[in-house]
Amino acid sequence: MYEMYNKWGDIVKETLKQEVINARSLSHYRDIAIVGMGGSGIIGDYLQVLAYGSPRRIFVIKDISLPQWINKSVLVIAISYSGNTIETLSAFYQAIDRGCEVAVVASGGKLLEMATKYGVMHITISKGLVPRAAFPALLYGALKILWSGGITDIITEEDAKKALTVLNSAPAMNRSQQIAEFIEDYVPVIIADTRYAPLALRFKNEINENAKMPVKVEVLPEWAHNDIVGWELGSEKFRFLLINPNDNSLYQKFIEFAESYFKSLGFSVYKLGLEGSTLFEKLMHGTIIAGFTSLLLAERRGVNPLITESITMYKEFIKKIFKN
Amino acid sequence: MYEMYNKWGDIVKETLKQEVINARSLSHYRDIAIVGMGGSGIIGDYLQVLAYGSPRRIFVIKDISLPQWINKSVLVIAISYSGNTIETLSAFYQAIDRGCEVAVVASGGKLLEMATKYGVMHITISKGLVPRAAFPALLYGALKILWSGGITDIITEEDAKKALTVLNSAPAMNRSQQIAEFIEDYVPVIIADTRYAPLALRFKNEINENAKMPVKVEVLPEWAHNDIVGWELGSEKFRFLLINPNDNSLYQKFIEFAESYFKSLGFSVYKLGLEGSTLFEKLMHGTIIAGFTSLLLAERRGVNPLITESITMYKEFIKKIFKN
Repeated sequence: MYEMYNKWGDIVKETLKQEVINARSLSHYRDIAIVGMGGSGIIGDYLQVLAYGSPRRIFVIKDISLPQWINKSVLVIAISYSGNTIETLSAFYQAIDRGCEVAVVASGGKLLEMATKYGVMHITISKGLVPRAAFPALLYGALKILWSGGITDIITEEDAKKALTVLNSAPAMNRSQQIAEFIEDYVPVIIADTRYAPLALRFKNEINENAKMPVKVEVLPEWAHNDIVGWELGSEKFRFLLINPNDNSLYQKFIEFAESYFKSLGFSVYKLGLEGSTLFEKLMHGTIIAGFTSLLLAERRGVNPLITESITMYKEFIKKIFKN
Repeated sequence: MYEMYNKWGDIVKETLKQEVINARSLSHYRDIAIVGMGGSGIIGDYLQVLAYGSPRRIFVIKDISLPQWINKSVLVIAISYSGNTIETLSAFYQAIDRGCEVAVVASGGKLLEMATKYGVMHITISKGLVPRAAFPALLYGALKILWSGGITDIITEEDAKKALTVLNSAPAMNRSQQIAEFIEDYVPVIIADTRYAPLALRFKNEINENAKMPVKVEVLPEWAHNDIVGWELGSEKFRFLLINPNDNSLYQKFIEFAESYFKSLGFSVYKLGLEGSTLFEKLMHGTIIAGFTSLLLAERRGVNPLITESITMYKEFIKKIFKN
């Protein structure tokens, strides 16, 4: 599976070449709902934090149905790598029924078929990847939808391209080795500030799926208002991975507080310093490290990262429900 | 601390009598941002799911600053039990600076002082409680703000009052005893569907703060797309508490799937069936059970639920940062 993560740079380049079908202006949409699950749904979380400094609002919907307030005034982007995710298809049909402008990112499946049938904006991304390894195709695919619609205030194509440099895999692999060694025999607790919460979540999901390990995620400053107390009596089972934003923000101080807190209790902490000069680059840097870490953990634990049996079981189950 | 939770019914009644100062019409606001942290911030999560069937959108902000898109078109409700939560005060000043309509729920402190100074809508709730035990005062306080402003499509006063019956503490205590016994020596994993995610989070925070235990929360259907795989290789340290919505929804089937999944792996599962006939009542029922469970766990573990040393440490730390 390493080769899929190793070619993220190429995947980005391929995706950037891919044509957006039925392109139309989207720039009048202030509200954008991103619908998707798992490795596809996480794209919504990334776009949400990227949009924090823009006038637009990103809503992340990981559910079988849409909240009542989603109507024509909201642009809906449905993302499913396979194109057959039942929750996403269900939400897609609802959005169409409500008369929303819908756009689609998928490699194939029913979702692309429906996108063609309804004449909605869509982009076809590279086939043959595992959904979670298709992260850059899904992310840049969604960005291409936005750019083709004239939305450039979340991130520009130029700035997104700059992130390619942080995908250089050699130094990332080195950090990943250290982290895998550090958390291997523990339940990892990944802590980030609000801006990097999606990265912490992605890190968790990667370790869940590739390495078959449970993981816990916490977000600062909220973490310091409740979860922090849970560690007062000790923790032999857990180890703490702090996402260090490497900047001069207040959040940086929050992370340092968490570090000194855990150390004062005698716990082991690994601080992952993100590289890059923008939020986008740092997110991408952390994401490739998360990918490699999860693969290294799979190797150490002797499990096959490609196979996720439980998800297959769930997909069989939900297929049956929707047939009834 | 039991007496504080035991008198939730009375706290609701007191709160309902409390006057909203500077009341004005709010019904033209489609977008409402609820700002707060910890035991105060969780009110935003509850209101968000309650609003899913309404035309209004609730944004939950647990942060020191507001996203860029929060402007005059968004109503901001700042909630802080003490009235001195630094993150909330910081977001409050930002909202004022941006010319937003702001409303305040607090028992005292700087936030109430500023509410008076700026002439914004506010309600003063009962003093002398521990913030997390003040849950009904905070929730019904926020609701009174909405009702006084003419917003009754999230929940009406009549429907909110009906929930008082599920706060009857005897049967709740019985369930709490069972749950406390079930999870005492483990790391609890609390799983709910999207509608009950705030309750799962509240449950976690209560156990963190009162019983000094770490807890993990997962939400269905997203849980089945990544986290589910983390349990494939076993779990001696964890035990699973499923929030059973007790209805005929698809979500009910998701919970049943999770139950059979865990059982097939040989894990112990406790299914908490929520009582009441509406989402609101079920949320309240689960919330009182969460409270009692956390107190019983504190007793069993020999810790004082009233004292949360680490949060005090954090508050000292953030006070210093904001002074610089």
